[in-house]
Amino acid sequence: MEEKHKTDIVIIGAGPVGLFAIFECGMLKMKCHVVDTLNFTGGQCTALYPEKPIYDIPGYPSIDAVDLIEKLEEQAKPFDPIYHLGQQVTSVTKITSSSCGLTAGSRKEELDSVIKSQGDNKGWKVKTSKGVEIECKAIIISAGCGAFGPNRPPIERLEEFEKSGSVAYMVRRKEDYRNKRVVIAGGGDSAVDWVLSLAGLAEHIYVVHRRDKFRAAPENVDKMKKLEQEGKVEMVIPYQLSSLKGDNGKLEAVMVKDLDGGEKELKADALLPFYGLAMELGPIAEWGLNIHNKHIKVDHASCATNIEGIYAIGDINDYSGKLKLIVCGFSEAAMAAHSAYPIVHKGQVLHFEYSTTKGTPGN
Amino acid sequence: MEEKHKTDIVIIGAGPVGLFAIFECGMLKMKCHVVDTLNFTGGQCTALYPEKPIYDIPGYPSIDAVDLIEKLEEQAKPFDPIYHLGQQVTSVTKITSSSCGLTAGSRKEELDSVIKSQGDNKGWKVKTSKGVEIECKAIIISAGCGAFGPNRPPIERLEEFEKSGSVAYMVRRKEDYRNKRVVIAGGGDSAVDWVLSLAGLAEHIYVVHRRDKFRAAPENVDKMKKLEQEGKVEMVIPYQLSSLKGDNGKLEAVMVKDLDGGEKELKADALLPFYGLAMELGPIAEWGLNIHNKHIKVDHASCATNIEGIYAIGDINDYSGKLKLIVCGFSEAAMAAHSAYPIVHKGQVLHFEYSTTKGTPGN
Repeated sequence: MEEKHKTDIVIIGAGPVGLFAIFECGMLKMKCHVVDTLNFTGGQCTALYPEKPIYDIPGYPSIDAVDLIEKLEEQAKPFDPIYHLGQQVTSVTKITSSSCGLTAGSRKEELDSVIKSQGDNKGWKVKTSKGVEIECKAIIISAGCGAFGPNRPPIERLEEFEKSGSVAYMVRRKEDYRNKRVVIAGGGDSAVDWVLSLAGLAEHIYVVHRRDKFRAAPENVDKMKKLEQEGKVEMVIPYQLSSLKGDNGKLEAVMVKDLDGGEKELKADALLPFYGLAMELGPIAEWGLNIHNKHIKVDHASCATNIEGIYAIGDINDYSGKLKLIVCGFSEAAMAAHSAYPIVHKGQVLHFEYSTTKGTPGN
Repeated sequence: MEEKHKTDIVIIGAGPVGLFAIFECGMLKMKCHVVDTLNFTGGQCTALYPEKPIYDIPGYPSIDAVDLIEKLEEQAKPFDPIYHLGQQVTSVTKITSSSCGLTAGSRKEELDSVIKSQGDNKGWKVKTSKGVEIECKAIIISAGCGAFGPNRPPIERLEEFEKSGSVAYMVRRKEDYRNKRVVIAGGGDSAVDWVLSLAGLAEHIYVVHRRDKFRAAPENVDKMKKLEQEGKVEMVIPYQLSSLKGDNGKLEAVMVKDLDGGEKELKADALLPFYGLAMELGPIAEWGLNIHNKHIKVDHASCATNIEGIYAIGDINDYSGKLKLIVCGFSEAAMAAHSAYPIVHKGQVLHFEYSTTKGTPGN
C-alpha cells in the first residue's frame, strides 16, 4: 500500500502532548498529520494506565488518563488532524534541490551536510512502516519514551505461544482466564495486581518470582500472602522461568528453575510475564539529532532540536531544569508551535491573540 | 488590625497561575499563603472576562474563565491554602541576623547588599496593606500584569461622582441604568458591548468617541450603527470628555468638546468611561528585582529571579521566547515549585513521583 499526503506539520507520537500540539498548531493555522506506533491515540495514558486518575492536570482535580485523552482529542478535532496509527516513522528525508535522506545508517558527513544546508530547507518527507509518505514543512517529535513494548522473558519458543495467546503481557479480558491454571511471573505492581484480580476466577495461580521481596503496594502484597495461606495462590520463590512445554501453541506446562539450577514443572494453560516495559527510540535515534541518554536535546524556549524544522516536546526532550510532567509538555507544545510558525508561514508575522478573542473553528 | 503567620511559601497573585502554584507546591509538601489585591480569586479571569470561554486550556475544548478558576481552587483546596484577599503586599523583608528590608525607597547599595548576602537567607517577612505579616521561606510572584484598575479620564471632580456611582467603570447591575440617560465613552469592545446591552433599558444613550473608527467586533459595531439609525443611540463623534456638571455627586450633564475646542452639553444621569485598564506593578517594582518593561526577568528553567528565594511565574515574568499563555504559566508554576523545594526542605532530596502514584491528600 502506498499513500501520499502533504501537510504543514508531522507530529510523531499521539500521546497527550502530541494531541495538544495539534491544537496549538491549529490555532496558528498549521495543519497536522500524526503518526504513532500504537493502534490508538493516547500513548502511555491509554496503553499503560487508562483507568488511573491523574491529579496534576491544571483545572482537573482528578481525571482518568483515558478521559484526558478523549478531551484532548476533542480539543484537536476542529483542526482536522489526520492520524496514521499502528505504524512507525521509518525515515525522514530533507527536501532540497538534491534530496538527502536521514535514514538509518547515514554517515556522519552526510548528516553534517544536512544540518549545514539548513538555509536550503524546502521541508521534509516522512515515511512510515505502512508505506505512507507525508510531505511537510516541519516536524514535532512528541514520542514520549519512544516506542515501547513489554520486556519479554529470555526463553525459547515464546513466539509460538504468544501467537496462540497462551503467553500474554497484558490481560485484555479477565474472562479468558476463568477456570484456567495461570502462571504469573514478576514482582512488581502489575504482577501482584493481576494475582489479586484473577484469584477468584482462575482454577489455580502460580506466582513465579526470583526473590521473596515484591516491589508493589504493601497492602496488595499482604492480600496476596493471605490468598497463599488460603491455598488460592501458590508462591514459586525463588524461581525463574526456564522453558515452555506444549504443542501447536497450546501450553501444557511452564518450567522454572531456582538459583542452583533445580527445575520444577508447573502445569499451566497460560503464562503472564510482567517484567516491565522496554523503551526504544527506534529509527529516531538515526536522524542526526543531538541525543543524550535516549533524550533529544532542545533549546528550552523554542523546543528546537539541532536540526532546523525539527522540534521535540514532552518526555522525549531534554534541557537544563527539565521536569517530566504532562503540564510542562503542554507548554512545550505551545512553544514549538510558535517556533514552527515562521517556517510554515514564511514571511508572515504572527499576531498574538488570546483564544478568548480568536475562538476555535466553529466557535 | 495585626495578624501574624508562618508558612513555607507566599504566593503573590491569586490568578489561575497562582492557584495552580498552590497545588504544585502542595504536591511537594510546601504550604502556601496567597495574597491578592482583588477581593476574590481568579485575577483577570474573574475580574475582566468571567463568562468568556477560554479555548486553550489543555483538556478543556472550551471552559468559561470563572469555571476554570473554580476548578483550580478545588484542585488547590486539599493543600489548605490561606488566602489574604483585598490587600496588597507592601513590603518584603529578608530575615537575617540583622534584618534588612526591601521596601519602597531602599537605596541601591542596600539592595545590592541584600542580593549579595543570599547565603545568609533565613527566609522572608511579607507585610500586606491590611497589617498581615507572614514569615516564609520563599516567595512566588504570580501577579499577572500587576495590580490593575480602569484608566480614568483626565477630567476634574471625577472622585465626587465616582463615590455616588454616577461615574462607573463597569456595570455591576444593568437595572441601575433603567430609564436613565447614559453617556458611554470609548471605542473598544467594552464600550460597544455595553451600548448594545443597555440600549433597550436606558432612556437615552450617548456614545462619545474621539474618532469614527471603533476597535471592536465588526458585527457589534454594525448593530450599534443600526441602533443609531433607529434613534436609540446618539453618536457624539469626534468628541472627548471635558467636564462634569452637577452637585453633591448627582450628575446633571457631561460636557464634551471636539478637536477644535467646540463644546457641547449632554444631559445625563450616568457616565461609563471604557478606556481600558491601567496595569501597575505597584510595590513589587521597589524590591530590587531585575525588572524590564514592567516584567520580572527570570531564568526560564527555574523561574528564579535575581534574588534567591523569589520566583516569578505567569504573565509577569520574562525570558527569551516567553509566551503569555496560561498553559505556559501552569508549567512555570511546576518549575518554580520544584526550584523552591531545596530552599524550603533544606538538605532533603526530592524524589520524583508521578501524581498517579502519589495521589493527593484524601486520594
